[in-house]
Amino acid sequence: MPKETKSIAVIGAGSWGTALAMVLADNHHEVRLWGHKKNQINEINEQHTNRKYLPEIELPAGITGYSSLGQALEGITDIILAVPTKAIRGVLGQIRELAKKPLMVVHVSKGIEPDTLLRISEMIEEEMPAELLKDVVVLSGPSHAEEVSQRHPTTVAVSSKNMAAAERIQDLFINQNFRVYTNPDIVGVEIGGALKNIIALAAGITDGLGYGDNAKAALITRGLAEISRLGTAMGANPLTFSGLAGIGDLIVTCTSIHSRNWRAGNLLGKGQNLNEVLENMGMIVEGVRTTKAAFQLAEKYSVNMPITNALYNVLFNGRNVKESVDILMNRTKTAEMEDLFNVLDSRLK
Amino acid sequence: MPKETKSIAVIGAGSWGTALAMVLADNHHEVRLWGHKKNQINEINEQHTNRKYLPEIELPAGITGYSSLGQALEGITDIILAVPTKAIRGVLGQIRELAKKPLMVVHVSKGIEPDTLLRISEMIEEEMPAELLKDVVVLSGPSHAEEVSQRHPTTVAVSSKNMAAAERIQDLFINQNFRVYTNPDIVGVEIGGALKNIIALAAGITDGLGYGDNAKAALITRGLAEISRLGTAMGANPLTFSGLAGIGDLIVTCTSIHSRNWRAGNLLGKGQNLNEVLENMGMIVEGVRTTKAAFQLAEKYSVNMPITNALYNVLFNGRNVKESVDILMNRTKTAEMEDLFNVLDSRLK
Repeated sequence: MPKETKSIAVIGAGSWGTALAMVLADNHHEVRLWGHKKNQINEINEQHTNRKYLPEIELPAGITGYSSLGQALEGITDIILAVPTKAIRGVLGQIRELAKKPLMVVHVSKGIEPDTLLRISEMIEEEMPAELLKDVVVLSGPSHAEEVSQRHPTTVAVSSKNMAAAERIQDLFINQNFRVYTNPDIVGVEIGGALKNIIALAAGITDGLGYGDNAKAALITRGLAEISRLGTAMGANPLTFSGLAGIGDLIVTCTSIHSRNWRAGNLLGKGQNLNEVLENMGMIVEGVRTTKAAFQLAEKYSVNMPITNALYNVLFNGRNVKESVDILMNRTKTAEMEDLFNVLDSRLK
Repeated sequence: MPKETKSIAVIGAGSWGTALAMVLADNHHEVRLWGHKKNQINEINEQHTNRKYLPEIELPAGITGYSSLGQALEGITDIILAVPTKAIRGVLGQIRELAKKPLMVVHVSKGIEPDTLLRISEMIEEEMPAELLKDVVVLSGPSHAEEVSQRHPTTVAVSSKNMAAAERIQDLFINQNFRVYTNPDIVGVEIGGALKNIIALAAGITDGLGYGDNAKAALITRGLAEISRLGTAMGANPLTFSGLAGIGDLIVTCTSIHSRNWRAGNLLGKGQNLNEVLENMGMIVEGVRTTKAAFQLAEKYSVNMPITNALYNVLFNGRNVKESVDILMNRTKTAEMEDLFNVLDSRLK
């Protein structure tokens, strides 16, 4: 049980924001859940449900819905930012105008901004004036919102440039069902969370093609190697990719039908094109934007990322899905360590 | 297409031995598939099926069944040993008596011998006189036999103390669907393959308890860390555990209902005791023996293995399943890197 109870604003009332609001409410914090759709907020306050995102879940009494961002932020110093990466700059622009005190911003989104190639914590630092920003913390890990809302056991990592801030956020969230671990490597935690969506798209494709669990496990293994290569080049600690925000999140996203990115990939593997898929999903598929950003990052850092590269060509250059996967599976290289040593070689004795 | 075609004996006509015999036959080798059950061998030769192990699969013409080990070994120098670890010493005792020329032994089993704590390649070296043993090669990786027999894309690693031997075996097996990578770290490849069965049992338990995908992903992540800790203490290269025989095999075994060890764990999680589970399975569950061996290895090498330890107490000391998992999930340690750094710390600059 956390010692201190606080008023906390959760910005974004999708499935993940709502599930995290529930964790905070279970810990006896006063939780303000902000969303821009009035009827959704009315449902939250009157029926204590958010059925579009978490069907069959009853929200705890400690959660109040807000459709006014100004009211939600009144007197608040801790915000949980749970909006799609595409919406982050817009929402921060509003928050900046409304905030009166420096804010602790915890982001729980997973992505890299195309073209600027910024991580989300860097976007936040860019949008928020220094005098309005105390610290930025990222929370990431293997955590389907549906299961968190059902209070199933879940573990996540939190990270920040300021570890005291990460530890404070750990204290706010941690309870019997929701275990929070600190990790000082914010670059690795953000890159792991973002890039797993690319591999989840690719895993959905191999499943859509009917290739089976052996092929998918090989893809995840090689996907982890390529995420680690890029992350390490960007300054991450390679060990982070062996942890919750790396392989942990990658496994849950690639092997569960809860995952949007997997589902989008699955439709691609079954023969739909990108436009059809995005239309059928009716939801943001972060992995599509992230593939573009990671493709650009791989060029910038001169890192070999065959899966990202193949997916980029499928998504944006109309390359054939099955042919691309078959080429990936049949690469001529046959010494496993070549691939793996690239990650760590220079750091091992 | 391999350049050389050979006569090769596959010792053990279970699902894995049969699937590997199919790969070799697809590569135009003459394959002798040995099993001790006469009616099964008759079925293989007369109906070209092995329905008990691979229902609905037609065996290629290049496979001939043998119930006489002497005839199967006649003129042979390459054998694929595909029997349960419990049966290995017995079978090698027979092979030793019958072999006339030095043999190349490829083993494809996954386990550690309790009490002696030997890896399988070490058991083979102990049982076979040096003058009858050319080399020992291990083949391991994410590879459900059912999918290999359906010619779905599959990748595996081969390793040996003599890399030229591993490369020869790579040449015998590799084809369009079955990709074979070499890895010089035989200790890591054998330990990864053996210990994943422990984590698969534990993953089956959390699934049996209804804990969900988040909990399972956390368990697999921590499981990989503890396998890496033990393997590294035993002399393995920590990178192997990030590869096909490490995380690759771990993922496929923990997330697929094809896996016997997962299924056994699932029954334990649903409340059956070990005897009931083994009776219901009617098949060897390697992970049970391996848990005992790994528990002993952890003591021998003074390595912290909380999942193995908890499972050992559930299997052999009648400890309550749900309580044990809950204790594992709620360990007080909250800095992720403590766990991970244990693996590599001393090897990182």
